[in-house]
Amino acid sequence: MASGGGDEQEVSNKQVIFKDYVSGFPKESDMYLKTNGTIKLKVPEGSNGLLVKNLYLSCDPYMRNRMKKSINSSTVSMVPGSPIVGFGVAKVADSGNPKFKKGDLVWGRTGWEEYSLITDVENLFKIENTDVPLSYYTGILGMPGLTAYSGFYEVCSPKKGEYVFISAASGAVGQLVGQFAKLLGCYVVGSAGSKEKVDLLKNKLKFDEAFNYKEEPDLDAALKRYFPEGIGIYFDNVGGKMLDAVLLNMRPHGRIAVCGMISQYNLDKQEGVHNLMHLLIKQVQIKGFVVSDYYHLFPKFLDLVLPHIAEGKIVYVEDIVEGLELGPAAFVGLFSGHNVGKQVVLVSKE
Amino acid sequence: MASGGGDEQEVSNKQVIFKDYVSGFPKESDMYLKTNGTIKLKVPEGSNGLLVKNLYLSCDPYMRNRMKKSINSSTVSMVPGSPIVGFGVAKVADSGNPKFKKGDLVWGRTGWEEYSLITDVENLFKIENTDVPLSYYTGILGMPGLTAYSGFYEVCSPKKGEYVFISAASGAVGQLVGQFAKLLGCYVVGSAGSKEKVDLLKNKLKFDEAFNYKEEPDLDAALKRYFPEGIGIYFDNVGGKMLDAVLLNMRPHGRIAVCGMISQYNLDKQEGVHNLMHLLIKQVQIKGFVVSDYYHLFPKFLDLVLPHIAEGKIVYVEDIVEGLELGPAAFVGLFSGHNVGKQVVLVSKE
Repeated sequence: MASGGGDEQEVSNKQVIFKDYVSGFPKESDMYLKTNGTIKLKVPEGSNGLLVKNLYLSCDPYMRNRMKKSINSSTVSMVPGSPIVGFGVAKVADSGNPKFKKGDLVWGRTGWEEYSLITDVENLFKIENTDVPLSYYTGILGMPGLTAYSGFYEVCSPKKGEYVFISAASGAVGQLVGQFAKLLGCYVVGSAGSKEKVDLLKNKLKFDEAFNYKEEPDLDAALKRYFPEGIGIYFDNVGGKMLDAVLLNMRPHGRIAVCGMISQYNLDKQEGVHNLMHLLIKQVQIKGFVVSDYYHLFPKFLDLVLPHIAEGKIVYVEDIVEGLELGPAAFVGLFSGHNVGKQVVLVSKE
Repeated sequence: MASGGGDEQEVSNKQVIFKDYVSGFPKESDMYLKTNGTIKLKVPEGSNGLLVKNLYLSCDPYMRNRMKKSINSSTVSMVPGSPIVGFGVAKVADSGNPKFKKGDLVWGRTGWEEYSLITDVENLFKIENTDVPLSYYTGILGMPGLTAYSGFYEVCSPKKGEYVFISAASGAVGQLVGQFAKLLGCYVVGSAGSKEKVDLLKNKLKFDEAFNYKEEPDLDAALKRYFPEGIGIYFDNVGGKMLDAVLLNMRPHGRIAVCGMISQYNLDKQEGVHNLMHLLIKQVQIKGFVVSDYYHLFPKFLDLVLPHIAEGKIVYVEDIVEGLELGPAAFVGLFSGHNVGKQVVLVSKE
């Protein structure tokens, strides 16, 4: 399956290297561009991995948690001196694996570099549908999309007409959760961190309401304004103070899916959440989840979402920077809310 | 159905009156004994309620939450100037309801007084089995028993061999949860607040391990000692610092049932819980619940627990004080862990 020895082309391979473990907010200087590397466009003898050309790289908040020393077995840290690791879309240049062949398009975990040798092939997905922009497989059709799908449908057990609140709602996951909830006939409110994002939520993504949390001195009061009858489902991307305010406003038997806690990722000491008594008062469920528990649902997810995209019933907003060298700034920008829509780095168009 | 007008006996009716809304720890002086009242042993004309003689009254931590002004519709406050309200075992003296007749034994919500007129008959349970002490229907066979059953089997979804931790484990609910878990083949550890209770857990209730949380300066370290492989299920009766330490020690896909948060009931401002990020890291679920959502399971619960009691496979520890006038001290004692086993007040033996 590996290609013959005759065409072992060696090419230059720019990389974004992870410098050292990060404390506090990540900075561009926590990464650096390495331009003098090379790579053979061939999988090593005996490997069942893939040699891929990276096309699009995904900037996701969870990556911050892999930039600290692993504190437990379930979070794998990035390795100082090695490329940043994240999700991306890539094209197979050489395959040692019977499931993939040269020219196949794939999405999954890859490196922040022009070419990567991927050995964890089990968690790669082959891209079959190319009627949509390939970059969508870093977002709405990739890990964040499946995160939104599994978090909303599997963790939140939503019913028609429920009152749904989503924080960081204009992000890759949030915008899709909101649209799923609207399709189901729910009342949907999102929070975001700028007027531009609030406008996006209301006008383009068709949320019922949206607000800029940075302009709300009293989050509890803001939530009471938008949810006079309380919140049935909270899709939490931020944790911290927003979660605390939401707890005060949950309806009986409400459900909270904890998808992310971006407000806490850069703190040495996590903020305290004071209103957990309301779990008891209102019989509320909170559940943390990771998308990898739901990979088996990917085909079902695509069956749902692809027709909606084709018909324009689900829209999607991306923020794409061009060039691997802009990756560090794009990633760092996530934590100040710099991006509008899903943050993607274009490495190469093909 | 109501008895005829000829036998309208009027008797004296001692009562424990709720004085006024409580802040901080409840004190005996928040209640007072009223000895000059009388009551007719007959339901009023047209009422479908019951006139009952109270036999045993239950002291339960949740009652503290009803001693403050209602902050939301789902918690009903006690009424200053009226008797304390709680669960109890009673004998029907007169019935206006076709489901009950004079002489029936019942358990459910009643007043802290010798005789009560109960109008909320829907939530009363008729006692069919009297082979066990009647006081058991304030505990193992009543609301706390069904709480333990529904919280463990329905909320925690336990599997054989799981690692189970229970706080306030020698209380009415905790001791039964631990025994259910042992019967299922789980490893079970409980925490309590005195050496006597720890001995009880280990020797009489057959927990695998138990510890005195008051003697553990570092709860995280204590939990790591008893759960080197982490906690699969946490049955939470206390909230606060213990919950925070447990979060650090949960296993992947662990479940936490929030049954009570007694450590927080007397605080004006709730303690902050800092380790909710572990919900995400370990995909943990927390769910608050109330027993009233599970009343329909009562027959199934009795079918399970009665044979086990008869065979001595489940044991039960009570702390009974004799006399209505000792009720206030017994209730207040819950919050300093004064009771050993389920706290009950005997009003009358029949």
